[in-house]
Amino acid sequence: MTLVAAPARLSTQSATFEADFQARLHWSADTDAAIEQRVADILADVQHRGDAAVLAYTQRFDGLEAADMSALELSQAELKAAFDSLPEAQRQALEQAARRVRSYHEAQKKASGESWSYRDEDGTLLGQKVTPLDRVGIYVPGGKAAYPSSVLMNAIPAHVAGVGEIIMVVPTPKGEKNALVLAAAYVAGVSRAFTIGGAQAVAALAYGTATVPKVDKITGPGNAYVASAKKRVFGTVGIDMIAGPSEILVLADGSTPADWVAMDLFSQAEHDELAQSILLCPDAAYLDAVQREIDRLLPTMPRAAIIAKSLSDRGALILTRDMEEACAISNRIAPEHLEVSSRDPHRWEPLLKHAGAIFLGAFTSESLGDYCAGPNHVLPTSGTARFSSPLGVYDFQKRSSLIEVSEAGAQTLGRIAAELAYGEGLQAHAQAAEMRLKR
Amino acid sequence: MTLVAAPARLSTQSATFEADFQARLHWSADTDAAIEQRVADILADVQHRGDAAVLAYTQRFDGLEAADMSALELSQAELKAAFDSLPEAQRQALEQAARRVRSYHEAQKKASGESWSYRDEDGTLLGQKVTPLDRVGIYVPGGKAAYPSSVLMNAIPAHVAGVGEIIMVVPTPKGEKNALVLAAAYVAGVSRAFTIGGAQAVAALAYGTATVPKVDKITGPGNAYVASAKKRVFGTVGIDMIAGPSEILVLADGSTPADWVAMDLFSQAEHDELAQSILLCPDAAYLDAVQREIDRLLPTMPRAAIIAKSLSDRGALILTRDMEEACAISNRIAPEHLEVSSRDPHRWEPLLKHAGAIFLGAFTSESLGDYCAGPNHVLPTSGTARFSSPLGVYDFQKRSSLIEVSEAGAQTLGRIAAELAYGEGLQAHAQAAEMRLKR
Repeated sequence: MTLVAAPARLSTQSATFEADFQARLHWSADTDAAIEQRVADILADVQHRGDAAVLAYTQRFDGLEAADMSALELSQAELKAAFDSLPEAQRQALEQAARRVRSYHEAQKKASGESWSYRDEDGTLLGQKVTPLDRVGIYVPGGKAAYPSSVLMNAIPAHVAGVGEIIMVVPTPKGEKNALVLAAAYVAGVSRAFTIGGAQAVAALAYGTATVPKVDKITGPGNAYVASAKKRVFGTVGIDMIAGPSEILVLADGSTPADWVAMDLFSQAEHDELAQSILLCPDAAYLDAVQREIDRLLPTMPRAAIIAKSLSDRGALILTRDMEEACAISNRIAPEHLEVSSRDPHRWEPLLKHAGAIFLGAFTSESLGDYCAGPNHVLPTSGTARFSSPLGVYDFQKRSSLIEVSEAGAQTLGRIAAELAYGEGLQAHAQAAEMRLKR
Repeated sequence: MTLVAAPARLSTQSATFEADFQARLHWSADTDAAIEQRVADILADVQHRGDAAVLAYTQRFDGLEAADMSALELSQAELKAAFDSLPEAQRQALEQAARRVRSYHEAQKKASGESWSYRDEDGTLLGQKVTPLDRVGIYVPGGKAAYPSSVLMNAIPAHVAGVGEIIMVVPTPKGEKNALVLAAAYVAGVSRAFTIGGAQAVAALAYGTATVPKVDKITGPGNAYVASAKKRVFGTVGIDMIAGPSEILVLADGSTPADWVAMDLFSQAEHDELAQSILLCPDAAYLDAVQREIDRLLPTMPRAAIIAKSLSDRGALILTRDMEEACAISNRIAPEHLEVSSRDPHRWEPLLKHAGAIFLGAFTSESLGDYCAGPNHVLPTSGTARFSSPLGVYDFQKRSSLIEVSEAGAQTLGRIAAELAYGEGLQAHAQAAEMRLKR
């Protein structure tokens, strides 16, 4: 059977564009009631029975037997041994990627994550103190898709933020451990690691068990059970976000080699049949050229079947009137990954309002950002870039307001506060302010 | 009947302290399954029927008849008229409070909310672009407890962030409008306002209707229906947080007049019978003095019944070994409001890791912070200050990573990325990087 990758060909000048475009974008995050109920049961069970419940589910779902939870903890020595076992090239790549990711997040902390304060003329001090979380949990998917890069992208910002303890959980179905994942935990400075996964691992982190310490926040991607569990424990602990399928949007002016762009579309499509790859360009001949490269390159790809289905079901090559219109459409989509594959990317960047990460110029393939450019690859999906941000140092910090009202300040502020408090019918508020006034 | 406010008297040296302390702190945010189901139904109905459903629920729950949704919109003229109708002292207090809140949040934006970038030696650009949300919704409770200060605290940071459009919803049961709330909307620069509330208002904002525009994020406190609706639309839109009962913790060294501290405990307790007021002090005689002031002042308070119940059910006066221990206990509680009522507050502040807002020194009553010191009064409750922050400009902004890899950078990064991508079995990722290498 010959595989065909046939992204939809749309044109903004077509009368049916709006409907076609909406149909292509449609993706429903509808939750499965059966999954929701099973997750609720697992959470309640772990909350009550602790380690015993985690052990039982790990045996049932991962086929992993253990006498007790301590047998499911990976020692630091085991993480280091995994690192030492890697080929030299992989070891170096991991370390270089970690170094770049660390230095980007250090810049991020410096730019937006430091405490600040100022004093009013009357001596009143106002500010905000920024402190790291005490302890966080990182969920790392195991089994089929094992992503060591995700270990770096979750653990390093936590480390840079100054988090005291980073607890990793990673399922190892049938006991199969991924050496790259363990090595990444070693490189990223994970404090403790357990070979547990699913809703039971989220529950262990959120509530704590005799063996697994309770954390303050849980980050990292997972399957439908993990996503449902994270959403359910939100409030007891912090969570990062609930990720949908991955997406790339390429804005092209036609100046980038067509095979580069085709491969960039593939690199999103190969993740998942639900992944979405979209190309916007004002040049119809260029869209044709990219389609030709898609056809030529597809048979060479090991994951061709996934790529073909993803591009055919959810991909699109869209002809726009001009680059300005392409930017406007991009803002409507608010993509996770946005490549500006243009000779003049800085002309278009100011027009782009909503995106998880913006990749400027032909040399900036999205895959460089996924692994080692420095910025985080955990990004808002499904249009949530309209209101949320890449995972960052700020996700592992919290802020406390600081207020020190001087005696002089209390005279001015006390009158304003009392007036408004009486207006709201809160007399104790008013009197607490009035007691600080000089008689 | 004589009201009695009898907070628990605990001592950290007592053998039963740990159990007594845990019992006092216990508060369950357990959700009511019946409310959950009704909220789910209301959301689905508004999503399908739009304005018609919102009108029907507003009529049913608020007793408010209207021919169509446009009749439930408050005009800018009406907001201004409400402001003009206020007594001069209230007008001035609102404006002065707004000015201080605005200037604090401008400082916050400058300190942590600006875009940044840097270039590597090889010319690669890395950074983050910070942009405001396009449109946000602010939920303002109506009816019994109407809080104009909450309008300022939600709308002003959004305004300072540069949000394009701020949509306020406020229920007006039986058509009763609160002039101070409308005036606060005028002062804070709300773009549009609708007299709707409950889950139906949250649904209208999250999904949009013919009349109410869809927003990107919803902030602001509300009752159990509003909280459940916000949690349910999380993901479709952003939300701020789910607030529990309000709390104050006072760390006292005994140097503040005891009646000031008693009134500060009242000012939290008067909010709600579930509110929690705790005093920690190493001086037993001072705890006695505060209890005497509680007994003396209680009969003078209009909201004495609520205060008495809140203090008796959930309040505590705790004797600690020393101030260090008091700080450690405070960190376990992670209170919403934390007063350091000490002669030397800067000695203790560095020991305080988790709190929504820290009020330093005897003159800094929490009520000054509630209204007009400048920092936000929307703060994390129920121990969530361990992982979350006051509402701020950052809640109305989002970040996009910026990456521009130079041709030289692509040579270094491409090799690292390809090595790791092959390790993860993602060949298109690897080849997208390799295509950018010079042959």
